[in-house]
Amino acid sequence: MVNIKTTRWDTLDAQQQAQLLARPVSSTDDKLTNTVSQIIDEVKAQGDKALFAFAERFDKVKLDTLVLKQPALQRLASDLPDKVKKAIDCAYQQIFCFHELQKSDDLQVETTKGVFCELRQRPLEKIGLYIPGGTAPLPSTVLMLGIPAKIAQNRQRILCTPPDAQGQINPAIAYAALLCDINEVYLVGGAQAIAAMAYGTDTIDKVDKIFGPGNSFVTMAKQLVSNSNQCVAIDMPAGPSEVLVIGDKNANPAFIAADLLSQAEHGPDSQVLLVSDSATLIEHVNVVIQQQLAQLPRQSIATQALKNGSFILTASLEQSIDVTNAYAPEHLIIQTENASDLVDQLTNASSIFVGAWSPESAGDYASGTNHVLPTYGYSKVLSSLSLADFCKRFTVQTLTADGLSGISTAIMDLAQAEGLQAHSNAVAVRMAALAQQS
Amino acid sequence: MVNIKTTRWDTLDAQQQAQLLARPVSSTDDKLTNTVSQIIDEVKAQGDKALFAFAERFDKVKLDTLVLKQPALQRLASDLPDKVKKAIDCAYQQIFCFHELQKSDDLQVETTKGVFCELRQRPLEKIGLYIPGGTAPLPSTVLMLGIPAKIAQNRQRILCTPPDAQGQINPAIAYAALLCDINEVYLVGGAQAIAAMAYGTDTIDKVDKIFGPGNSFVTMAKQLVSNSNQCVAIDMPAGPSEVLVIGDKNANPAFIAADLLSQAEHGPDSQVLLVSDSATLIEHVNVVIQQQLAQLPRQSIATQALKNGSFILTASLEQSIDVTNAYAPEHLIIQTENASDLVDQLTNASSIFVGAWSPESAGDYASGTNHVLPTYGYSKVLSSLSLADFCKRFTVQTLTADGLSGISTAIMDLAQAEGLQAHSNAVAVRMAALAQQS
Repeated sequence: MVNIKTTRWDTLDAQQQAQLLARPVSSTDDKLTNTVSQIIDEVKAQGDKALFAFAERFDKVKLDTLVLKQPALQRLASDLPDKVKKAIDCAYQQIFCFHELQKSDDLQVETTKGVFCELRQRPLEKIGLYIPGGTAPLPSTVLMLGIPAKIAQNRQRILCTPPDAQGQINPAIAYAALLCDINEVYLVGGAQAIAAMAYGTDTIDKVDKIFGPGNSFVTMAKQLVSNSNQCVAIDMPAGPSEVLVIGDKNANPAFIAADLLSQAEHGPDSQVLLVSDSATLIEHVNVVIQQQLAQLPRQSIATQALKNGSFILTASLEQSIDVTNAYAPEHLIIQTENASDLVDQLTNASSIFVGAWSPESAGDYASGTNHVLPTYGYSKVLSSLSLADFCKRFTVQTLTADGLSGISTAIMDLAQAEGLQAHSNAVAVRMAALAQQS
Repeated sequence: MVNIKTTRWDTLDAQQQAQLLARPVSSTDDKLTNTVSQIIDEVKAQGDKALFAFAERFDKVKLDTLVLKQPALQRLASDLPDKVKKAIDCAYQQIFCFHELQKSDDLQVETTKGVFCELRQRPLEKIGLYIPGGTAPLPSTVLMLGIPAKIAQNRQRILCTPPDAQGQINPAIAYAALLCDINEVYLVGGAQAIAAMAYGTDTIDKVDKIFGPGNSFVTMAKQLVSNSNQCVAIDMPAGPSEVLVIGDKNANPAFIAADLLSQAEHGPDSQVLLVSDSATLIEHVNVVIQQQLAQLPRQSIATQALKNGSFILTASLEQSIDVTNAYAPEHLIIQTENASDLVDQLTNASSIFVGAWSPESAGDYASGTNHVLPTYGYSKVLSSLSLADFCKRFTVQTLTADGLSGISTAIMDLAQAEGLQAHSNAVAVRMAALAQQS
């Protein structure tokens, strides 16, 4: 039986409250930094040769090729059971619908007479997706990254994922990649995949932006390349996944227990919180969670996560809301009466699940929202992955001679106030030319 | 007389071409990293006390207070000459107009029957602006950061800028800050300002995101805090400012010379490029630039920048476009016939200035576009600063019982394909409850 700590919020002082909601500190590990830097340096220096060598060393496979092209992907995908194909097709529909909605028009306005300003949005040219291997294949993440990329129409969309011991990848990943019209799949995993996409090799083109989750090596590699001179962006900082459930006395304990466990099974460092003004609900959830836990194949992982989990008993629903906003969870499930009325007050969460019939796993797979989300408190600051992340915006301005005349004094006076005479001159020479013309 | 190197593009091989367009490598300087880390640590440990001490050490002033509140700002602003007030007012109008246009509605869609997904956009709660002191005060940057923040309605909008030797700030900065309804201005500069906004002190609240330019200390501090566990975001990576002008044989050499000089006067590391298929134009610009340079107060800075500048002679307009896309400049000025027809082909630039009457200084100050722009080739990857950067987007999903039923098989089959049984259970317990109800 796992013991989940219940804390009465009111009994804590401000410092204890902050402590209770604090994430585990992710220490900067010099050894990890050095190891990953070395991997990146080898890929920079040796390109494909390094990738073949790392496959042998880390993935225990001697590869003939780094690439899986369309026919190879199709062969792999044909092995996928029909029910998984159907499930992927169903998820694809909703995810496509929600992300297509996010298309936006270019903007144009005449800010003052003769001064036309535009904000244009264009797809990034080359993007790279990273899909981890390991204990669980993640076709859902292929969809979450591949569908917005397909809608954005990034010209080059590549995917790196580690090969298994046979030099193959999971059929579900192949099937999802084909659905998203991924140009090419590379049999490269770990930090070496991130290095290859950031620096390019003979086989793999350098990309503009790298998306996707991964272990601590992958995360460190993404951070290092995004801080380098390579002009490569990354989707967002990574951290352990989190769920916070707000429940009231009428909430269904079995639903909440199942939601907490679905987060807990992700990994031993998953963050699991239940916030409620009902001691009875917390007790009931505690009972049911033990029963459900006993049935889980990933029981030991979930148990470890739950040990660090937290049941927080508040004095009121209002206090539950305050606690939630202070924690700023990645996933927030609201299991209360009139749940939808609370959403406006919940300002800090990356994805919100409203009401009894909205479990987190709906959003993880098939409701349509993206499951790549800011975590570790970043929901206060950063955005859920969306179509905009696959595009860049730039401005265009076109001034007529009259337009420039109209704001010429302002520009020249401001430039001079800032001590930038040449900025002023760029307008003055044009005004002189105009005066000559007329 | 400054000698600007002219290179005929066709005479270079691919490697030489890449070399010509390469930015100077910004070396990672361990000494700078250590110095800035120490400053940050002192602010973390000592708070306000460290800020007073740094003001004495770096700004040579013994401050009584770190804060300038509204009345103090108003007193300062009253000293500003009317013509500068008017210039700021004029710039404000266009910048406000262009950024207000960028407001967007929340999105909602029923992705499949009974499954409602929303993308909501909300302002970041607390933002911090950094405005450098030094050789030139930058009221224009206050507008570029303060106006979108005002439109986004970030609840707390603070500004840090270094005090002068009298413990005051430039009246133009005070005036612009008041126009943008900045809540409070702090007399704190350099890396210590970034640390104070990232970690908070008794006087200065921790913010969610830090915006604004600065010297190498400020830039390093922004990078360090954004890579820390503080959940603080920054606007974009910094680099030397850049302009690339495309001109044809009919372009006005005096206009182009003035535009190149307005970039060159920013700093010795400014990047200045002219790309043209006309040798005559390049010759003429070279002559005029010497004449204009001789008149400039910041002549020595501009001269240094021009020495590293580049005139590139191409075989055709098409080649000029290719060179431009490969370089991916921060500012791109198009001085050709039918300039606006070229914009669609120019995919990599952060802000584009179209035609003879659109100098860069128009966008630097008063056309309405933002002058905080990706540089160092990041225009390929990142976006011009816009209203979206002051907001966060998150998703909300609400499923009816029928809605969840409709996608339940897909969720459960996908979860099981990924080996995540508890994810499947979160749906199964709800389906079991539904079956019991009916």
